[in-house]
Amino acid sequence: MLHKFSKKMLPMAVISSLAITATLYGANTGLATAQESQANNAKVKNVIFLIGDGMGPAYTTAYRYMKDDPKTPTKELTEFDKYLVGAQMTYADDDKQNITDSASAATAMSAGVKTYNNAIAVDKTKVEVETVLERAKKVGKSTGLVATSEITHATPAAFGAHDESRKNMDAIADDYFDEKINGQHKIDVLLGGGLVNFDRKDRNLTEEFKKAGYSYVTNKQDLLKDKNDKILGLFASGGMDKMIDRSEATPSLEDMTNAAIQRLNKNKEGFFLMVEGSQIDWAGHDNDIVAAMSEMEDFEKAFKAAIDFAKKDGHTLVVATADHSTGGLSVGARDEYNFFVEPIKAAKRTPDFMAAEIAKGAGVEETLKKYIDLELTKEEIDSVKKAAETKKAVDIDNAIEAIFDKRSFTGWTTGGHTGEDVNVYAYGPGKEKLAGLIDNTKNAEVIFEILGGNKAKK
Amino acid sequence: MLHKFSKKMLPMAVISSLAITATLYGANTGLATAQESQANNAKVKNVIFLIGDGMGPAYTTAYRYMKDDPKTPTKELTEFDKYLVGAQMTYADDDKQNITDSASAATAMSAGVKTYNNAIAVDKTKVEVETVLERAKKVGKSTGLVATSEITHATPAAFGAHDESRKNMDAIADDYFDEKINGQHKIDVLLGGGLVNFDRKDRNLTEEFKKAGYSYVTNKQDLLKDKNDKILGLFASGGMDKMIDRSEATPSLEDMTNAAIQRLNKNKEGFFLMVEGSQIDWAGHDNDIVAAMSEMEDFEKAFKAAIDFAKKDGHTLVVATADHSTGGLSVGARDEYNFFVEPIKAAKRTPDFMAAEIAKGAGVEETLKKYIDLELTKEEIDSVKKAAETKKAVDIDNAIEAIFDKRSFTGWTTGGHTGEDVNVYAYGPGKEKLAGLIDNTKNAEVIFEILGGNKAKK
Repeated sequence: MLHKFSKKMLPMAVISSLAITATLYGANTGLATAQESQANNAKVKNVIFLIGDGMGPAYTTAYRYMKDDPKTPTKELTEFDKYLVGAQMTYADDDKQNITDSASAATAMSAGVKTYNNAIAVDKTKVEVETVLERAKKVGKSTGLVATSEITHATPAAFGAHDESRKNMDAIADDYFDEKINGQHKIDVLLGGGLVNFDRKDRNLTEEFKKAGYSYVTNKQDLLKDKNDKILGLFASGGMDKMIDRSEATPSLEDMTNAAIQRLNKNKEGFFLMVEGSQIDWAGHDNDIVAAMSEMEDFEKAFKAAIDFAKKDGHTLVVATADHSTGGLSVGARDEYNFFVEPIKAAKRTPDFMAAEIAKGAGVEETLKKYIDLELTKEEIDSVKKAAETKKAVDIDNAIEAIFDKRSFTGWTTGGHTGEDVNVYAYGPGKEKLAGLIDNTKNAEVIFEILGGNKAKK
Repeated sequence: MLHKFSKKMLPMAVISSLAITATLYGANTGLATAQESQANNAKVKNVIFLIGDGMGPAYTTAYRYMKDDPKTPTKELTEFDKYLVGAQMTYADDDKQNITDSASAATAMSAGVKTYNNAIAVDKTKVEVETVLERAKKVGKSTGLVATSEITHATPAAFGAHDESRKNMDAIADDYFDEKINGQHKIDVLLGGGLVNFDRKDRNLTEEFKKAGYSYVTNKQDLLKDKNDKILGLFASGGMDKMIDRSEATPSLEDMTNAAIQRLNKNKEGFFLMVEGSQIDWAGHDNDIVAAMSEMEDFEKAFKAAIDFAKKDGHTLVVATADHSTGGLSVGARDEYNFFVEPIKAAKRTPDFMAAEIAKGAGVEETLKKYIDLELTKEEIDSVKKAAETKKAVDIDNAIEAIFDKRSFTGWTTGGHTGEDVNVYAYGPGKEKLAGLIDNTKNAEVIFEILGGNKAKK
């Protein structure tokens, strides 16, 4: 929550009129006229917007290699491949960095506004900007946010909160509860990690949500049993476990997506849902191909759940894209004309998981044998043993990752983000509006247009 | 030219009937019926197919950063950006390598056939496969090949020759002259590098082409003066100089493209032209961002020339794509959230050019000062001086490249190819057939469909 430059305290009607004024006085919104909008969008009732954080073009191709049946001469298509409509530019409008972070990119996609890195749905002057989730609630739709990171992390935050910095995750959690639209809490379904930002010394938002009529669940079983329309589900103190590291108690991104859709779809006015495959990016920062492919699978299944719903529903636009690419991943490396997926598939847990066990005292050789279905060489085992001498999980993690990189010919150039355009996948009415090369702000423009109401402030 | 398994000696009628038989007996060509084809393609008279060799998604984004006007908050679009329709998968059908080379990828695009790496328009069993260039000639159109590599290099070769190996560039040059369709030489316009493969001890093809009625030119001035419909232009003994290293005597890819279009367009039946930006790939293999951006500009201008013609003509399909990505290029590297283009723009020649001068005895400091418009640090100059002690151009080249990589935050993971999907850009009637995610064979299928005649043998 912002205290300076904030228009949060203004009643919504005033904000709306400000937005209209901004539009009237020359801001080029790129939107169609109201009449055109109504004609084009008559059929779109629901929007499911999925973001594979960090999912640059190398990730989607690498994942196709993972899913390929080596017995056939052709590469089998992934769920994404069938719906490619184009690509988007991801750059931020940041004075010091020309490669975006997740906050700025998510603000572009949620509000149609280019802003500085770290900004959570505020513009370059730190003034709050309306998001498509807020517009959806305003026009009577239900709304949801689903992520495998903290649900207060940059990407979901930029749809459901406003803050000058992504780092203020407690204030972002406060926004999720405190900010109301038409007298209602603005987000009906919140599912992800990040309990520490809700259950705090200064405030227990889980209790406040319960008092406000929300269910509150912390494991998969309770999530599946629950029938309430409004729900807060927090399945980890921080980020959730990666897919291949999860226990039975942790829902998948697909589970959470389905749980969200079931609830939100009860509203006859329709819904807006944002789903983030948050940790593709985290795996990229860590230069961990095993974790990256785990999270790609988790995200693909959630995407398929959304597509399956949309196919039955007929009035749902599904979009899947990324906010940027991460890690400088390449499919093939070090002069080899192969990307071998078998070594990656041989991992039963992420290197981070194995490294944590070793750092806690588990034997190197036994741990590697337990979780990697490969005959490792003495040299490989010794490289991890040497790293384990430092007793630092990060060193052990890096040593294990190196084995997978070397065997698979995976390349990385950075622990940060990279600027390549990212793919846009879309299904359902309105998908053609996202075809070709778009700027990331176009996503919000198209969704605002679908949602109707007043035009977006730019 | 192949001597085993060759059907080259069969008369065309027999080959055609073989193709028809193959189609009748179950080969799924993915083609529409003849009637559908005629209806859909009534308007397409000419096809210009441009291949940016190695031009993966990081190259097209990096190039947009290069062309950006820093005074505006938005990124200006490149000529490519306006025409993005989707992406293509590039994988080969090679038993030992799952990342393609240029020969296999070009055969997929020219003939619609997945084959092994190194194959020049032959299938996995080394049987020759018809190319779209051959089909175009067969149905009465004019044909052309333009490249900045040797015109016998893998990519153009896979459109105009057949060989079990890309290495046989002399035999490929022979094919260009010897293989006839309906009694005519099959390629009307041949412009590029590679004189050594034409003017040889065993045979002088430049003389043979002249006797057959072709003009033969070796510099830009003669190319521009010439008015003959049929022309062989060889502007370098091997590959042509990179754009920023060229002298006045060397035509640009745009010059060659325009020269080809002017000639080919005289045919009322239309034409097929393949244009390759060959050395984007070579720059990628060398991990040379300066050369890569030079060649991207050369290729963009050729693409624009094709688009400009197509816009006036109205009956021309223009496609621009890549065969694969090269080098594992990333836009940003080493944890920095910036890709700085000013250092790249400061180069007046490629590092290879500078390294060659230094290796020949030019002073390090003077040479760097002459060709790089930057205040280099003592450390940077010393790094090149140290490399120059080896007197090997390759070491000097690497040292100079490292300066640009470090200042720009350019990342690389390999000296070879990588497997990421590559973008597809298209303009003109029929472009919608290439939209979404396609396999690289789809390009040939669509062009065969446009050209009509008998269906492609698969």
